[in-house]
Amino acid sequence: MQCLTNTVAAALSANVLLAAGASPAMIDTPEEAGDFARLAAGVLVNMGTPTAARYEAMRAAVRGATDMDTPWVLDPVGAGVLGHRTRFVRSLLADATLAAPAAIRGNASEIAALGGGGAGGRGVDTAHRVTDALPAARALAESTGAVVAVSGPVDLIVSPGRETWLTSGDPLLTRVSGTDCALGAVCAAYLGLGVGKHDAVLAAHAHLGAAAQVAARSATGPGGFAAAWLDAVHHLTSAEIADLVSWKDHP
Amino acid sequence: MQCLTNTVAAALSANVLLAAGASPAMIDTPEEAGDFARLAAGVLVNMGTPTAARYEAMRAAVRGATDMDTPWVLDPVGAGVLGHRTRFVRSLLADATLAAPAAIRGNASEIAALGGGGAGGRGVDTAHRVTDALPAARALAESTGAVVAVSGPVDLIVSPGRETWLTSGDPLLTRVSGTDCALGAVCAAYLGLGVGKHDAVLAAHAHLGAAAQVAARSATGPGGFAAAWLDAVHHLTSAEIADLVSWKDHP
Amino acid sequence: MQCLTNTVAAALSANVLLAAGASPAMIDTPEEAGDFARLAAGVLVNMGTPTAARYEAMRAAVRGATDMDTPWVLDPVGAGVLGHRTRFVRSLLADATLAAPAAIRGNASEIAALGGGGAGGRGVDTAHRVTDALPAARALAESTGAVVAVSGPVDLIVSPGRETWLTSGDPLLTRVSGTDCALGAVCAAYLGLGVGKHDAVLAAHAHLGAAAQVAARSATGPGGFAAAWLDAVHHLTSAEIADLVSWKDHP
Repeated sequence: MQCLTNTVAAALSANVLLAAGASPAMIDTPEEAGDFARLAAGVLVNMGTPTAARYEAMRAAVRGATDMDTPWVLDPVGAGVLGHRTRFVRSLLADATLAAPAAIRGNASEIAALGGGGAGGRGVDTAHRVTDALPAARALAESTGAVVAVSGPVDLIVSPGRETWLTSGDPLLTRVSGTDCALGAVCAAYLGLGVGKHDAVLAAHAHLGAAAQVAARSATGPGGFAAAWLDAVHHLTSAEIADLVSWKDHP
Repeated sequence: MQCLTNTVAAALSANVLLAAGASPAMIDTPEEAGDFARLAAGVLVNMGTPTAARYEAMRAAVRGATDMDTPWVLDPVGAGVLGHRTRFVRSLLADATLAAPAAIRGNASEIAALGGGGAGGRGVDTAHRVTDALPAARALAESTGAVVAVSGPVDLIVSPGRETWLTSGDPLLTRVSGTDCALGAVCAAYLGLGVGKHDAVLAAHAHLGAAAQVAARSATGPGGFAAAWLDAVHHLTSAEIADLVSWKDHP
Repeated sequence: MQCLTNTVAAALSANVLLAAGASPAMIDTPEEAGDFARLAAGVLVNMGTPTAARYEAMRAAVRGATDMDTPWVLDPVGAGVLGHRTRFVRSLLADATLAAPAAIRGNASEIAALGGGGAGGRGVDTAHRVTDALPAARALAESTGAVVAVSGPVDLIVSPGRETWLTSGDPLLTRVSGTDCALGAVCAAYLGLGVGKHDAVLAAHAHLGAAAQVAARSATGPGGFAAAWLDAVHHLTSAEIADLVSWKDHP
C-alpha cells in the first residue's frame, strides 16, 4: 500500500496499516512515486504538509495508478482553507488524462469545499457538520464517480446511488493526531483487496471505528488510547467489528 | 496553533497540543505558511531539520504573524552548534520589519549562543547548565523584549524585569525525543490565549512538567512514560498543576 | 549519533537511541550534514523517503565521516525495488574518495540487490529469505570491508572471515513501523563506541532483539508492544541481553 502522506501522520499511518495486516510503503518522491504506483495494490494521496516535490510525486503516482487501473484515495486535508493545495486537488480531479480517485475521504469542511453547493454562505473554514456536507458529498460522488466519505461523530459514505451512515468510533480519536489520515490509508488498503468500492470504504471506517470503541474501554487518556487502538486494529475480526458498529443505508 | 517544526517532533507536538486542548495545524510550506499565520492564534518556529523550503516558510509565517500582531515562539534548536540555522535565527531577530518573538525557548547552550555574554570561553556546544545561561537569557530578553525560557532540571523564565525559577518535571522527559519541541508548541498555545506573556510561558512549562511528574509515578521506562505523559497532559487541571510544581520569582 | 533517515522512522529511531543511552541528532540538510558529521561519533545513512536535498546531505555526511575516520552505517531501504535510490547507493559505495561504510544493514532482498550473486534469477523485489542472501552478503562484505547484517527471523552478520547467526527478537517487531530503521541507528551508536565492528553490529542486533522478547511477554498487540520495547531497550543490561539471545559463529 503506497502512501504519499504528510510527515505528521506518516508513522501512525504505517503502524495502522501494519496492525491491519497491510504492507505500507511510504514512497513519495518524484523520482520513485510513479514507478512504484505501477507495482502497488493501492495508493493514498494525502494533502497534508505538501512540499513542491511531493506535489510532483503525487501527480506521478496518480499517473502510475491510472496506467495500471489501481485504486487511489484522495484525502484533501485542508482543502478550502488553504488555497494552494486546494487548487492542486481541483487540478488533479479535473485532469481528464488521470483516473478519478476510487474514494475521497475528508471532514465536512473539506468535502464541502470540493463538492460545493452545500456550503451555502459559510466560510470553508467553518466547522461544518457531517449533515451539512451531504449535498456536497452527493455532488462530488456524481461528478467523479468516487466513493465520498465524510468523517465525523457519524460517518457518511456516499456513492452514486447509495448512501450509508455509520455509527462507530470514540471522541478520543479526535485527540490523537493523524487518526483521520490513517483512515485514508486503510481505505486504500481495503480498496486494494478488490471488493466493491463502497463496501471497502465502509469496512475501513468500521474497522478503525470499532477499534476505537474497544480502546476507549481501557484508556484513560489519548496516550494509552493510541496504543490500545493499534492493538484493537490488530486483533479485531470482521465478525467482532460488525458487532461493534452499526450502519444503515439511506434511502 | 500553527507549527513549523522538525519532522522528528511533529507528531508528538501535535499530540501534546491535542492533549492540552489546543488545535494543531502543521502548515509549513512557503506557499501556505504566511497566509495561514494570518488566521492562527499563535505560531511556533522550531529550527530542527530545516529544509530550504521550510526556512522560506518560517520567514513567511513570521511576516504573517507580524501583520496580525499574533504571538510567535522561537525554538532555536541547535543554535550555536550549527552555523547555517544560527545565522538564519539571527537574521530573523535582526529584521526590524518583523515582530520580535513573544517567547524564545531553548536549552542553556542555545540561549547562550543567541544571548552571548554568559558563554565565556566555552564552546557553544558545551553542555551549559541553566544557571550559566542566566546572563545570556537576560541579555536576550532585554534586546528582543521576548520572554526567554531556558529548559533544564530547573527551568528559568526571564522577562525584562522578572525572573522565575520553576521546579517541575522528571528526568524521563529527557529520554523521550521531542518533549522540548512540544514544550515550545505549548508555549505558543498558551500565548495564544492572550494572558500575560511571562505567565503564559510559565504555565506551559508547569503544565508539561507537572504531567511528567504524574507520568513518572507509574512508568517503568520511556515508552510507557510517553503515553502516560500525554494522558496526564490531557487530564490535569490548573489547580492540580499548581499543586505539583513550585516556582519562585527572583529577585 | 547523527541520523539521516526517513521521515517515517525518525521519531522512533530517536526514541530507541535515547532509550539505549545514546544521543540522537537528526541533522540531515545539505547545509549542515557535512559539518555535523565531523563532530559526530557515528553516522547513519538510511535511504527511506529520500528527497533531493537529503541525497545531497547524505553525500556530504559521508564525506565528513570520511574526513574524520568516523564509522557510518548504510541502511539501503528499498534497494533493488527502487531504481533511483539503488543507483545512488551504488554510487556511494563505488566512490573511491569516500570511506566504505562500517556496516550495511538491510533485509535479504536489499542485500541481495547490492551484493548480487545470490539473487539468481529471482526479482529483487522477491521476499528473499536470509539464507538466500548469504552469498550476496559475503560478496558485499568482501568488496567493501563492511560488516553486512541481514535482518530476519534469524539475523546473519557477515564480515570478511566471520559469520554469525543470531537468534533473538519477536514477530511483533515486524508489525511496528521503523523498528528495522531504528536498528540501523543503534548499529551506528554501538560502532561509535569503538569496539570491534563485528561485535558492535552483533551487540546492536542482540540489544533490540532481546528487548523485543521481553516486550512480547506482556504485550497483546503492536501498540503496547512498541512502548514495552522502548522500556526494555532502556532497562536491559548486557548480561540480561546475553541471557536472552543466542548466537553462533560459523564456520
